[in-house]
Formats: sequence, structure tokens, C-alpha cells
Amino acid sequence: MVNAVEDCVASESDDTSQGRSPPATPVAGVTARSMEKRTERSFEGRLLSRLLTFLGDPALEFVLWTGESVRPAIVAEPVAQLRIADRTALYGLLADPQVSFGESYSQGRIGVDGDLVGVLEAVYRASTTAKRRFSVLRRGVEMMRRRRVNTLHGSRDNIHHHYDIGNKFYSLWLGRTMAYTCAYYPTSTTSLDDAQVAKMDHVCRKMRLKPGESVVEAGCGWGSLAIHMAQHYGVKVRAFNISKEQVAFARERAQREGLGSSVEFVLDDYRNITGKYDAFVSVGMLEHVGVENYPTLGRVVSQCLGNVGRGLIHSIGRNFPAQMHPWIEKRIFPGAHPPSLAEMMQIFEPWNLSILDVENIRLHYARTLRHWLDLYEGASDKVAEMFDEKFVRMWRLYLAGSIAGFTTGTLQLFQVLFAPGHSNDVPMTRDYMYAR
Amino acid sequence: MVNAVEDCVASESDDTSQGRSPPATPVAGVTARSMEKRTERSFEGRLLSRLLTFLGDPALEFVLWTGESVRPAIVAEPVAQLRIADRTALYGLLADPQVSFGESYSQGRIGVDGDLVGVLEAVYRASTTAKRRFSVLRRGVEMMRRRRVNTLHGSRDNIHHHYDIGNKFYSLWLGRTMAYTCAYYPTSTTSLDDAQVAKMDHVCRKMRLKPGESVVEAGCGWGSLAIHMAQHYGVKVRAFNISKEQVAFARERAQREGLGSSVEFVLDDYRNITGKYDAFVSVGMLEHVGVENYPTLGRVVSQCLGNVGRGLIHSIGRNFPAQMHPWIEKRIFPGAHPPSLAEMMQIFEPWNLSILDVENIRLHYARTLRHWLDLYEGASDKVAEMFDEKFVRMWRLYLAGSIAGFTTGTLQLFQVLFAPGHSNDVPMTRDYMYAR
Repeated sequence: MVNAVEDCVASESDDTSQGRSPPATPVAGVTARSMEKRTERSFEGRLLSRLLTFLGDPALEFVLWTGESVRPAIVAEPVAQLRIADRTALYGLLADPQVSFGESYSQGRIGVDGDLVGVLEAVYRASTTAKRRFSVLRRGVEMMRRRRVNTLHGSRDNIHHHYDIGNKFYSLWLGRTMAYTCAYYPTSTTSLDDAQVAKMDHVCRKMRLKPGESVVEAGCGWGSLAIHMAQHYGVKVRAFNISKEQVAFARERAQREGLGSSVEFVLDDYRNITGKYDAFVSVGMLEHVGVENYPTLGRVVSQCLGNVGRGLIHSIGRNFPAQMHPWIEKRIFPGAHPPSLAEMMQIFEPWNLSILDVENIRLHYARTLRHWLDLYEGASDKVAEMFDEKFVRMWRLYLAGSIAGFTTGTLQLFQVLFAPGHSNDVPMTRDYMYAR
Repeated sequence: MVNAVEDCVASESDDTSQGRSPPATPVAGVTARSMEKRTERSFEGRLLSRLLTFLGDPALEFVLWTGESVRPAIVAEPVAQLRIADRTALYGLLADPQVSFGESYSQGRIGVDGDLVGVLEAVYRASTTAKRRFSVLRRGVEMMRRRRVNTLHGSRDNIHHHYDIGNKFYSLWLGRTMAYTCAYYPTSTTSLDDAQVAKMDHVCRKMRLKPGESVVEAGCGWGSLAIHMAQHYGVKVRAFNISKEQVAFARERAQREGLGSSVEFVLDDYRNITGKYDAFVSVGMLEHVGVENYPTLGRVVSQCLGNVGRGLIHSIGRNFPAQMHPWIEKRIFPGAHPPSLAEMMQIFEPWNLSILDVENIRLHYARTLRHWLDLYEGASDKVAEMFDEKFVRMWRLYLAGSIAGFTTGTLQLFQVLFAPGHSNDVPMTRDYMYAR
């Protein structure tokens, strides 16, 4: 078994970093034959065929360890070829396709000849046309999954799982800013680093920060935004985060920049924020809050601002409520949930916080992730040294899957600007955001 | 009784059209005395005092028909003086302040010395600080009110009630465009007519209309936007409306402009829209749809657009779900309901429609309404001739109350831009909206 897996890993050619590759050459003869003469298909081939119907006929070709090839009857040109190395991988897919695909891909039991992002886009696109009658079954499976909760303690564990695996690891592929959130590309040629700075400016401009003002930030990552706000907008920042590694990194960075007196990094949960501020900002934390805690977050925001000021929450979201991809939830982001806008409103509506502006920049996240994945692939040898090959594949799948999520519209990126409901200190037009 | 009422009407000085007037001179001696020596207050005075506590102590002074003056103990400088002409008016207020204020004001049983908008702003501002313990009681009263439903037949009645009272009446105060929705003021000196045109351009620009495209409009009023789109953006428009008077007016207008072949006005309900279009637009109809019909509206939108195109819905809204003001619902807009954003999402989320952009321009509606009220006051003699004095006061109260709603943040104005969830024909940035 181990040999089979290693063979599989050795022979495949995931080329996500090279952009979209042409579709893998289909083994036309075999496929055509297996379509025409259904009786010749093996038991496993028939099971796989059923699975593809269940998945909404994605434009993919699967090849079993026996060499037998299966693809949906309606698919003329598959995006890529997926090789299933053994029975364990096949039966795993049949039992729980979403989680097992991730597990088997990480272990190398499933190999991809072609563009991994293209594969995942095909799966996401097909899933929306998957037969309605399966949705009840799916919902049942969803309900049974154990999700990680976001109590004060649970959040600490969940955040530790993802953000404390090593600053050195993240520095290999996040770029100079170490901003681990969607960038903003003013032009199609903007670089990753420039786009991250442009995102920070876009956020600061939306909030109309003025020198001398105070800002509280919930979930500050490695501190790039907090430092940028202090450095370029002359504001005082208190930034909260429960990741020890990130806070240590951010503090050192602020010291190095000579901003020790204007930026304070606090190793604590957003629920423990106190004090009054001119602005509240949170970029990329909401995904980890959990809908059940949105009214609590809204209370914190409301107490921070009182009857004046403004705030901005930047978060991955959805067009409609849906569970986090279960494999991502299990291996990458325990306790995470990208909300729909209606769900997000549970932060604001109980506290009479007024939505001034919502911008959806999901295609910017697809581009950001492309840049990250390119850097990641370039550093994959180093990642393998730090961890192992399985880890390399796991994170490749996560990054590629995220690109596919944003390009297919399975995921959104919302920037929500708001102010206390009684405040009339709101601009008449958005010209101020776009004035040069 | 009739004399008392007429006296009251004759002597008052509502000067809403003159902007905010200085607070009415309080009858200081009487007020101070009534505060200090509570035992001297009449039974009615004590009841009124209780009512003011219930209302959250608005900055108002009430004067009873006996000359007795009552104002909240915490109010030093009332915004205006309200004269209650008789016991009927007082007991009405005590029984159901929201509806009775409107009724008694219209009948002249309540007079206002001072700025009517200021009075209503004071009431709205106070209501948010009104004691929580009353909210259960209030909710009970709300529940008992009979609302007008928006079935196909019910909507026709509801729309007829408001929009078919006479094109000539509306032409007295809506300005040249006859647009009866929030305008958009690029600068503080933009005129009403220019701001209405700017609003139409703002909407068209957001939708990126291109010559030759097709647009369906749900709820087209007197046709200004439909005609503007055809005239200035070269699109073909089908515009739906169930108000006979408005459709007749709009058709004549299109003929006059020589646009008979590019704009079609259809006297029918939005639920009966069929066909495919490049864009869906609805400006100021959603308020009349009713939350229970939002998924139906979403289905119509989704069918009109398929997997491509884009849409915009412009509507009065709320920071949180709340019933329509019951007097407005009873006398002005039967069946109307301005939704919160979470409520609005019931249009989009069931159909995987993706929100691209939300803009809240509530202060523009306050300014629009100020312009309308000024024109209305200037034409009030003509309105009185067309209807009667009661009608004049009723509509004055409605316009003034709407201004107060938008200035105090009780009401919002949302423009929501959206596209089918699978469409990647979405702009990266909003620069295109603001490029000159």
C-alpha cells in the first residue's frame, strides 16, 4: 500500500503554479468503451460512475488502479485526470467524498494529472447542478459532523491549530507584508505586496481615519494593518489577537518600526475588548467567530463606538448560509464559518448599527490566493523539510480549493462599513474613497 | 368642538418649509410650577406626563386646552410647543400615541408651534431611549394591528390607494422628473431635478448598461428611469407597474419623447414578469412587496437574469426589522414595509444571487424630502382646493415625518447591486462608478 501511494505521488504532475494547463489527454478508447458497453464496467467502476452522478457530473476523468477509466457521459473534454491509487481511496470517496478527497489527496492516494485548481472548480461548478434529491442526504451528513465550537477556550485551540504552526512557514509564501487576508488589486498588474498595501489603504480610506484618532482592531494577524494605520494615518491602535506566535511577531515588528508607543498588541480575545475608540476594524477574523457569537461581537463593537465613530469588518462570506467545507474545517480551519450577509447582519441589527457600505471583492481573493500558491509551490521543498510531503499536499489543496471557491462564487469576500445608527457623521457620497 | 379645532388650526404656525425654527418660547413659569408642585397638576396633566415618560422624554412641551403646560423634567429647551385642543385628542394619544398623533394632527386637534420636522425628530430620538419595559407592551399593540396584505389583489388596492390619487397632485411638488424616490446629490448645492437625474445615472452606471441591452424594471412610477435609460443608455426597457394613472402618464411621456419603440410600459404585477433580460432594476418598489413575497421576487429576478447579467434594487430600509409606522401604514402607505438588510437578503439568498455592492444614502432622502416639502408647502393652497385642509395636514405630516425618519436614522435608503452567483462578469473595483 505504501509503495502504491509513493508511486502515485512520484508520478503525478500537479502544476497549479504554472497556471491553467490544457486538459489532460483523455484515454479516449477506454472511456468510450466504458460508456458504450456498460456491462463491461467493473463493480468499482459502476460505483464511481454513481458517485459522479451524485456530484453533478463534474468535467473530470477518473482512472482506477486497474487502469479502468470513468467519466460522466455528458463530459466530452475533462479538465484533468484523477488517478485513484487503491480501494481505500475509492471507498473513502464513496462514503464521504468531501472529507475523503482531501485525506486521500494529502496522502497521495489520489493523484491529479492537470490543473488542481481546475479540478476543484469543476467539482464546485458541478455541485450546484447536483440533483436536488441528494441535498437532503447531504444535509443529514452535514448535521452529523462535529464542529469545533468557539467558546473562549475553543477559539484559542482553533486559532492555535492554524496560526501557530510557525511564522517562518507563513513567511515563505505570504509576501513581505505578512498580511494573510484578501488583497486589493487596483490594476491587473499590481503585485501581491502592493495589493496588500492597497487593501490596507482601501480599508483606512473607507473608515476616514484622521491623525490622533484611536482604533481598536479585532484579530490583527501579524500586525500589518495595525502598523500601517499608525504609520500612515497617525492613529493610535490597540490590536487584539489570541495567536501567541502572531502577537510576538507583531510586537517585534512594531518595535523595529519605532511604533511601540502608538500600537499596542494585546494577546486576548475580542470578547474582552474594553474602552472607547473612534473606529473598530476587523480584517479576516469573522470567519473564526461563529454565528452564535455574532450578537456578542456586535455588543463589543457597539460599546467600543458608543454613538459616534465607524467600523469595518472584512470577511470571507457566502451567497447563502452553508457549512464550511468539512475537510477544510477538519484539517485547516477548525471552527471556521464564512457567513452569508443575512447571517452577518446578526452582528449589526441587534445593536442598531447602520450598514453604510458593502463591497464584494471575491475575485481579488482568487488573485491573492494565486499569488500565494505560486510562492508556496516555489517553496514547497522548504515546506517539506519543515513538515512532510503530506503537509505540502494538504496545504496545496487548501490554497487551490480556496482559489476555486472564489472563482466559482462558492465563496465571497465582503467588506462591510458601518456606523452607530444615530450618528449622522456619515459621508454623502463615496467620492472620498476614490479621490486621489 | 369644531370651533376649538378651527381655532387651533387658525392660530398655529407650522413652518417646516422655512427650515428649523428656534425653539418655541416655553411658558417657563407654568412649566416650572407644574414640575415643582406636582400636586397642582390636573388629572389630565398627570396622564400626559406619564405619556411623555413612556415616549422616552422627547424634547417637547405640550399645552392642554386649559393652558396647563407639561414637559419632561429633563427637558430644558423644548424644540417646539404642541397644543392639544381637547380631551378627545389627549385620550387618543394616551390610547395609541402613534396613530392618534397623526389623526389628531390631520384634524387640527393637535397644533404645532415650531418646526414640525424638529418635533418628529425629537419623538424618534426619544423613542430609542424609551424604557425597555414598555417594548413588550408596544410589541403587543403592534401585533394586534391589522396590516394590509400584498396578494396580487391586495397589492393593487394598496398601490391604488397611494399612487392613483392624481398625477396633477404629485406634479405640484415632485419636480420636473416626477421621480418619487430618493435623489442623489453629488454636491450640497445640486437642485432636486438635477439630483433626480444624478440618481438615475448613478443607478445606470452601477449596472454598467450598454447600448442594445435589455432591461426590465419592476415598479416604474411615472416612468422617469425607464425613459432615462432608453434615452441616455440606448437600452430597451420593459417597465412594470400596477398603478393605472402612473402607467397612463408614463406611456404618454414616452410617446412624446419619441421612445415608443424602445420603452414598453406594462400594467401588471412584478410577479407576472417573464422573459430574459440583461439587467433587472427596481427603484422604490420593494417597500410595497412585503417580506413574505421576497423569495418570489427573487425567483422572478433569477428567471429574468439566468446565469448572467446584473440587477439593482433601491429601497427604503431599516437598521433592524421593525413594523411600518402604523399611522403611515393606515393613511399613507397601506401594506408597506421598509426591510432591514437581513430581511432583504430573503430576496437573494434562496436563489444564489450574489451581492456585489450595497450603498446607504439615507441623508440624500432627507434632502430630497426637504425639497419636496418646500414645494408642497408652496402649493398647499392648490392641494387644499384639490382635496381639503385635512388632506393638506396629513401629507405635510407624512413628508415631515419621513424627513425625521431619515435624519434620525430610523429609516435607511439601500441601493443593492447584485449578479447571479455563477457570473464572473463582475468588475474588480468600483472605479467605473466614479470615473468621469
